[in-house]
Amino acid sequence: MAASPYQQLEQEFRRLHAFRGALSLLRWDAAVMMPRGSADVRGEQLAALETEYHALLTAPRVTRLLDRAQANAQGLEDWQLANLREMRRQRDHAIATPTTLISRLARATSRAEVQWTEARHKSDFALFVPHLEEVVALVRDKAALLGQALNLQPYDALVDEFTSGITTQDIDTLFKALSRKLPSLINETIELQQKQRPVLPLTGKFPPSKQRQVAVDVMKALGFPFDRGRLDESEHPFTEGVPGDIRVTTRFDANDPFNGLLGALHESGHAMYDLGLPQAWRDQPVGRDRGMALEESQSLLLEMIVGRSRAFVRYLKPLLEKHFGASGPEWEVENLYRHLNRVRRGLIRVDADELTYPLHIMLRYDLEKKILSGELAIRSIPEAWNSFMEERLGVRPQNDVEGCLQDIHWAVGSFGYFPSYALGAIIAAQLWDSLHAQRPGVDEEIANGQFGGLFEWLRDNVHSLGAKISIQELMKNASGKPLSAAASLRYLENKYLEGAT
Amino acid sequence: MAASPYQQLEQEFRRLHAFRGALSLLRWDAAVMMPRGSADVRGEQLAALETEYHALLTAPRVTRLLDRAQANAQGLEDWQLANLREMRRQRDHAIATPTTLISRLARATSRAEVQWTEARHKSDFALFVPHLEEVVALVRDKAALLGQALNLQPYDALVDEFTSGITTQDIDTLFKALSRKLPSLINETIELQQKQRPVLPLTGKFPPSKQRQVAVDVMKALGFPFDRGRLDESEHPFTEGVPGDIRVTTRFDANDPFNGLLGALHESGHAMYDLGLPQAWRDQPVGRDRGMALEESQSLLLEMIVGRSRAFVRYLKPLLEKHFGASGPEWEVENLYRHLNRVRRGLIRVDADELTYPLHIMLRYDLEKKILSGELAIRSIPEAWNSFMEERLGVRPQNDVEGCLQDIHWAVGSFGYFPSYALGAIIAAQLWDSLHAQRPGVDEEIANGQFGGLFEWLRDNVHSLGAKISIQELMKNASGKPLSAAASLRYLENKYLEGAT
Repeated sequence: MAASPYQQLEQEFRRLHAFRGALSLLRWDAAVMMPRGSADVRGEQLAALETEYHALLTAPRVTRLLDRAQANAQGLEDWQLANLREMRRQRDHAIATPTTLISRLARATSRAEVQWTEARHKSDFALFVPHLEEVVALVRDKAALLGQALNLQPYDALVDEFTSGITTQDIDTLFKALSRKLPSLINETIELQQKQRPVLPLTGKFPPSKQRQVAVDVMKALGFPFDRGRLDESEHPFTEGVPGDIRVTTRFDANDPFNGLLGALHESGHAMYDLGLPQAWRDQPVGRDRGMALEESQSLLLEMIVGRSRAFVRYLKPLLEKHFGASGPEWEVENLYRHLNRVRRGLIRVDADELTYPLHIMLRYDLEKKILSGELAIRSIPEAWNSFMEERLGVRPQNDVEGCLQDIHWAVGSFGYFPSYALGAIIAAQLWDSLHAQRPGVDEEIANGQFGGLFEWLRDNVHSLGAKISIQELMKNASGKPLSAAASLRYLENKYLEGAT
Repeated sequence: MAASPYQQLEQEFRRLHAFRGALSLLRWDAAVMMPRGSADVRGEQLAALETEYHALLTAPRVTRLLDRAQANAQGLEDWQLANLREMRRQRDHAIATPTTLISRLARATSRAEVQWTEARHKSDFALFVPHLEEVVALVRDKAALLGQALNLQPYDALVDEFTSGITTQDIDTLFKALSRKLPSLINETIELQQKQRPVLPLTGKFPPSKQRQVAVDVMKALGFPFDRGRLDESEHPFTEGVPGDIRVTTRFDANDPFNGLLGALHESGHAMYDLGLPQAWRDQPVGRDRGMALEESQSLLLEMIVGRSRAFVRYLKPLLEKHFGASGPEWEVENLYRHLNRVRRGLIRVDADELTYPLHIMLRYDLEKKILSGELAIRSIPEAWNSFMEERLGVRPQNDVEGCLQDIHWAVGSFGYFPSYALGAIIAAQLWDSLHAQRPGVDEEIANGQFGGLFEWLRDNVHSLGAKISIQELMKNASGKPLSAAASLRYLENKYLEGAT
């Protein structure tokens, strides 16, 4: 019997999945293994494969098959129908942006990235202005075309690329709820923490090789499969690869015993999500993650909620004793817990704590919408950034490096990504709330280094669904409630005010 | 002005070059970095990229462009003409074998490779027979189709895939010359070496990390660019990557101070050839190596001729002292030289010395032609193998592991490759002969760790020509003589009889 249009599509997307895996490995290698002088060669390889990927995905044959499969959809099961929907979604996104625009954007962002680095070295945003202007003009074109094709507002179309089904309206509602409560919560927490006896400092050197052993022990306890995955070091932590060959990285700092571990936890959260995706659909669009907000929820759940909990610190203490020979009052559970959960009005997003982090995101979300609409001129970004920081966090950057030059996202054209981080934190708290209610013993399990129950719940309620249902449906099913900031605020209030010692 | 057909072809082959580079990285990673359990995922990625590569190379558009460029060839320069010829050669090879046959062969060889491993474990060739029969039947079909398309005898067509322009007739002439002289040369050498005082053994442990330092020091002296290349460890030494990102591997044995270094030298020979290819043509067919026999000549020149010379041992001695703290009479130059150049009647090809190595190759060449023609039945291979070894080398394998199961080549369908090794040794000796005549100070340079002169000559006479001229022309230009076994025999006689101490 000849293959049906739907079956032929599965075959096409199986091939595309293999291309994605190859591309992912090329990127992993570039960041972890590649000699420094080989970037130009790797750039050519990535461009060739990406162009081919785009050509295969947008070929007339795929469009024809999608239409024919849609017309014969009555014979398909629910997973197949969801797969067909996700196939079309991928194709629609890809075809909306003409290849000429993609390659102009690729060239502009690769120039802008270099200039961003240069401008950071000199702490001079002015150097970066013309390059960011060029990138923004192209992103604006892309957003307009995507918006037309997807019937979305331009900025919403960019967000949809990262997290399908979330709009500016959703984000505004969630962020408004956070910003009503967070400022006073931050004030109260800082006051409270200042009244407590000081946190004892963790001094000494923590050799990266020992830190790696701690991270590996923790990842093994989480269930990370080292026979089908790796942990390496890179400039910035990231996760690449595909289920079946998943690769996480972190970065160890000899002066800080936790930075590298928290990075490994964050990336393991991504990896465990990817590993829990439905095996039967692993090479199909419906078998992929449900977007970056949900991805970040899984990494933040592990890094921020679990990794900075008392239960986890209890589990961690003997590992630190074993690998660092750590002993003394500063290594007691309560001191470590307080060390990990200090709240500070800082300037740098990636160093921020749970409470102030959302404000860093709201700033970027606010500005990037105005940049795209043209309401905020590129040259006026530093002033807008610094004023926002002063108004909302009470600290003002003294230069552009600790201000608007700190993130690479805009230089590489990633507008619409930032909200994912704060959405991820909100989602994580809401999932944790349900998980905790349904498995009240989970803290005790974590303290014993047993993570099976935690991941069983996450697999059942999140991972194994892939991209089958919308993020809203998923949250409703998993928590019994629509996505909202309520659980997040409750979690933060409880942790930093009531639960504080 | 619109791009000419020739220019459009260059664009197509630039893309194919990027694909080749990506494929090479996927293979490197599989052997060096990939977790053990990820082979299935990698297999899918390789298959997808290889299929796409084949589809792009054999697309009707490429054929049309080749014809149109050929019709307008009067405007092209000599490098461009040679490039056009090599483009057509690649396309002709690719199009001769239908994709269905390629994928049947891929499946059969991947099964056969597993069974070969299994049969080796049990030292039982009979287990492997049906699988090898299946592979041979498919290779026979491929050879017939290739032969028809290229107007060559079937076996010659297979050889042509690895080393263009060399036929069975050429190989027979060269091998006949060797086999007339080698048996008596081997006898005399072994007698002579037995009469000398015994070689002092090199005892102790040689930690792989120290061996790596020796290898890196040597590779730096050779001019290997560590900012655009890497040295790693793998089960079997190999070279992957492209100029601009070249990756060699070796394998260190803690009980043997030289094995890993000689492996690194061998692979550095390949790497230096690839690095010396014409930069202006680096992403075009004419910018590639002139086939596997010439590749092996470069690796064997470094591993066998240079790496086992007295001059090189003089250079090496202080490095061994520095990294191993080696001292004592066994580490004197003459003892090391004799250690590296002992001749033995062994059963294993990869452990063989310069003198007996060609006999191992002739055996395989002889058998694989008979296997393909059907003259030798698969089940009769062990008997034919063992008789040949006994007749020609005076040793008889006691089991199939030290006999016909020792090499993977046939299991993976690589018929026609083996001659490259012996041809490489012949070519290397003939090039060395000329190099030496034109640069009489080269030994002294090598003893001083100066390899610039050696590689300058090789770049001028071999590397920088890429695939512009045939291997025969190249040898004529480089040595003033046609390719023959004369220099090789002279080199061996001089080294093992006259030069022996």
